[in-house]
Amino acid sequence: MSRVTIAPEEDRLNAQIAFAIEIDKLKRVIRRNHLMDGSRRENDAEHSWYVGLLAMILGEHAPAGTDIQRVVAMLLVHDLVEIDAGDTFIYDAAAVAAQADAERAAADRIFALLPGGQGAEMRALWEEFEARQTVESRFAKALDRFAPILANHHTEGGTWGLFKVKAAQVREKVRIIEEGSPSLGAYALELVELSVARGHLSE
Amino acid sequence: MSRVTIAPEEDRLNAQIAFAIEIDKLKRVIRRNHLMDGSRRENDAEHSWYVGLLAMILGEHAPAGTDIQRVVAMLLVHDLVEIDAGDTFIYDAAAVAAQADAERAAADRIFALLPGGQGAEMRALWEEFEARQTVESRFAKALDRFAPILANHHTEGGTWGLFKVKAAQVREKVRIIEEGSPSLGAYALELVELSVARGHLSE
Repeated sequence: MSRVTIAPEEDRLNAQIAFAIEIDKLKRVIRRNHLMDGSRRENDAEHSWYVGLLAMILGEHAPAGTDIQRVVAMLLVHDLVEIDAGDTFIYDAAAVAAQADAERAAADRIFALLPGGQGAEMRALWEEFEARQTVESRFAKALDRFAPILANHHTEGGTWGLFKVKAAQVREKVRIIEEGSPSLGAYALELVELSVARGHLSE
Repeated sequence: MSRVTIAPEEDRLNAQIAFAIEIDKLKRVIRRNHLMDGSRRENDAEHSWYVGLLAMILGEHAPAGTDIQRVVAMLLVHDLVEIDAGDTFIYDAAAVAAQADAERAAADRIFALLPGGQGAEMRALWEEFEARQTVESRFAKALDRFAPILANHHTEGGTWGLFKVKAAQVREKVRIIEEGSPSLGAYALELVELSVARGHLSE
């Protein structure tokens, strides 16, 4: 947009709009897991909506005193770095290790589109999510891990079979859920064991 | 899931999970407008993420005292009724009128999946959004209208041309943006006039 005069507050808005245009790309970052009807793979934007709303619905299963609104905010920004770095399959250990540098570079570029302190504020949400040192980030990460287990259980194994994921690997992810929410961890473990019992997840 | 013993708190969690499985369907409700690269139409779930994050980014353009976290929560639930009622093109006046009853019936069914007071709490967010009587709901609705204008401007007219939408109709939607945020309303109007000047939107 060409503008004849630019007031400081317009500079801020223009920077925010540039960010808004950039983040639309998250709708084109495709994850491994499928929708619950199995019709197609999920993208990062709809996944981010889903876990953000899950935080609102399942907030009572977080430790007392957890700031659920901060969890929601964290989940809405948690995958933005994948615009540059792409989605990494959590069961591919080598890819996960290589991913850290790419995500940091992506954070440098994407959050810097925002004006002044706002970029730092949004980046802090992402850093907090990744570091998993607060109750909010541990609960956010728990939901991020819970959603694909729920979807795979619901679709008779879904992407577990497709990508030859074994029960022991999924149980390891369940530990991350337990750290954020003991009750959701217990529930997820029950889904995993039911999936094994039904032959939808291999030992 | 079969359970041998069901404690009251497990009843609550089971109801929340039933809701979580149901709302996955929002990823399959397709809207008229396109992604910013024009590659495909957008779905309600990724749209809900987008406007929720826009609220976080553009919150300073809401009236002072607006509870932005409530705006985010409202935007994450605002389209759930479209799981049953489908998306209505905002420029199709007859369809918009017929939609109200269908959305109310959808709200009755979908929010009732949640336990106890939680369904009422989520439904209240949706009712508030629709009624547009609070600063939060007016700002939320403004963002819901702002996003497609930004996308259409960015894609050289996008769905405006496709669905033969005229400038006067878009300017009417801009008024709803102005009611929620004068500065975003002014910005949107500028996008509309630029689109007209460039021949991407017809008078």
